[in-house]
Amino acid sequence: MSSSSASADCLGWAARDESGVLSPYNFSRRTLGVDDVSIRITHCGICYSDLMWSRNGHGDSKYPLVPGHEIVGIVKVVGSNVHRFKVGDHIGVGTYVNSCRDCEYCNDDEEVYCAKGMTLTFNDVDADGTITKGGYSSYIVVHERYCFSIPDDYPLASAAPLLCAGITVYAPMVRHKMNLQPGKSLGVIGLGGLGHMAVKFGKAFGLIVTVFSTSLSKKEEALSLLGADRFVISSDQEQMKALAKSLDFIVDTASGDHPFDPYMSLLKIGGVLALVGFPSEVKFSPASLNIGMRTVSGSITAGLKVTQEMIDFCAARKIYPMIEVIPIEYANEAIERLLKRDVKYRFVIDIEKSLK
Amino acid sequence: MSSSSASADCLGWAARDESGVLSPYNFSRRTLGVDDVSIRITHCGICYSDLMWSRNGHGDSKYPLVPGHEIVGIVKVVGSNVHRFKVGDHIGVGTYVNSCRDCEYCNDDEEVYCAKGMTLTFNDVDADGTITKGGYSSYIVVHERYCFSIPDDYPLASAAPLLCAGITVYAPMVRHKMNLQPGKSLGVIGLGGLGHMAVKFGKAFGLIVTVFSTSLSKKEEALSLLGADRFVISSDQEQMKALAKSLDFIVDTASGDHPFDPYMSLLKIGGVLALVGFPSEVKFSPASLNIGMRTVSGSITAGLKVTQEMIDFCAARKIYPMIEVIPIEYANEAIERLLKRDVKYRFVIDIEKSLK
Repeated sequence: MSSSSASADCLGWAARDESGVLSPYNFSRRTLGVDDVSIRITHCGICYSDLMWSRNGHGDSKYPLVPGHEIVGIVKVVGSNVHRFKVGDHIGVGTYVNSCRDCEYCNDDEEVYCAKGMTLTFNDVDADGTITKGGYSSYIVVHERYCFSIPDDYPLASAAPLLCAGITVYAPMVRHKMNLQPGKSLGVIGLGGLGHMAVKFGKAFGLIVTVFSTSLSKKEEALSLLGADRFVISSDQEQMKALAKSLDFIVDTASGDHPFDPYMSLLKIGGVLALVGFPSEVKFSPASLNIGMRTVSGSITAGLKVTQEMIDFCAARKIYPMIEVIPIEYANEAIERLLKRDVKYRFVIDIEKSLK
Repeated sequence: MSSSSASADCLGWAARDESGVLSPYNFSRRTLGVDDVSIRITHCGICYSDLMWSRNGHGDSKYPLVPGHEIVGIVKVVGSNVHRFKVGDHIGVGTYVNSCRDCEYCNDDEEVYCAKGMTLTFNDVDADGTITKGGYSSYIVVHERYCFSIPDDYPLASAAPLLCAGITVYAPMVRHKMNLQPGKSLGVIGLGGLGHMAVKFGKAFGLIVTVFSTSLSKKEEALSLLGADRFVISSDQEQMKALAKSLDFIVDTASGDHPFDPYMSLLKIGGVLALVGFPSEVKFSPASLNIGMRTVSGSITAGLKVTQEMIDFCAARKIYPMIEVIPIEYANEAIERLLKRDVKYRFVIDIEKSLK
């Protein structure tokens, strides 16, 4: 066995071209550094970003492309300087695996906004010049700073979606906590991987939660399983009108194009719409904003500190994403279903059992 | 003389139809109530809203229409319950003259966002069912709550533009004071009545101020007279690029249509664009918002308390709007010039000397 073939010991599934079709792919991970943790991946969530980059949706995909940035697993080796983790620990890796560690944002626990740009978990250029490869794979090597501790009693499969879907909605909610004191009213647009977590966080924060959806299919579950207080079909003008100026905060998770003015009219004076989805554009009337002293605020995942806080909050409050666990062989079909929004509410690949 | 003609003792200038042309018009003011102040108007600023409503720009104009909501003058009579003012006091009235005084917003010093709707100073329905008439007139009767005290040593003509232009930019600046600590960077889009006040407030707050304009004509004054630190032609891509991610806050006063993405790219991570103008729409890419954890926030003037604070701040810090004082006979021409942005920086009608 040559040394190059010996190092290609990481089993993964990769997209090879813009078709985005995933198939088995062996590759190498970088040599363990002193600050690195090598993680045996047990589960990886499927995020819409996986689909986008697999199919070159941003025009910058580097093939073969191994997606996946909702990674959980078990520590198998640690570098000599690693202090936070030991072999056997449950551990997670989210949407980025590096940053400059020296700018105002890195120093202010906002590594995701690193002035020099954080390093994405897949399809980005790693410190050694290689292309980062994500969690649809058997193991990963990551600097310990960019790893999260998963409490032992928190199911690993359930932890995966926290690392992108969960933190993406949790971060703006805690950032605007003044609008989200107990008893305040939260609206959630879209009930997918992100939206269903916003509902769960909303209930945990003591909020009155209204879900806005384009279809009735998720109504029963939203109310009975997720605990939402109201379910509104956004095309129903009567229902929408009845909610005028009633919400303190809206988490808008919809990545499909949708009008903003009808939702902004539901915000109270001083209300905030937090955008976390990526529709093709954001467009509204200045009157919708100005006359209500309203705010439209955006963000992507979050810094490391608040991400760990969210994981700990979920563990303490027993908040679990609703997931459909699938084998890696089902990934292509799962992605097709994700495209049709046919998932309740996050696919999680059982890497441990199916990737051999 | 009949009693009805006797009561038409208020001299004003009114628009009679959608042409917006102003001409002399005599009308009556309501009888002084116990809480009312009757004000001999000395000056009234000309706001873009005057032009909009005079020409039925919002489709709801009620003619004859007497514009003007930057009103200053001298108290001539007070009702028996009036405590804050006495005859001879310098006094101001801004964009609204009433509100419900009983909702959460009125109780929270945000009367401009009154749940039942505040009463605009002109072209609105007053408590007695008549149509409110603005400050292009010899006197006005207003409930004392909706009047502001103008310090004796603050020139009345200069005080007028504070009551709409000034407070419109001051309010979002103090609301987002975390982004505007001394040494932070402020951008001001548009250098008209509002924008030039944003520059003055910015310098008073100890900020580094960059003015964005579409033309060079105001550059010299912006830098030398207003004290701005930088003047950027917004079409100059090199200059814009050099400022990428450099601003903490932008006050966007432009009411003409303009792109938002180029300005949002100038905001630092977590930066805020405060919209106070009314372009036909607000449109940007979600990436401009989300990837920089940025905020777009809107507002209109402000509550009574912060408005009074601003007046007192301007008096204490000797901050004066730059004005061109005109006689009422020049109002039509002034409005034409305003439409062409040919004013530095606010027209103020000398009611006292010219309206007889």
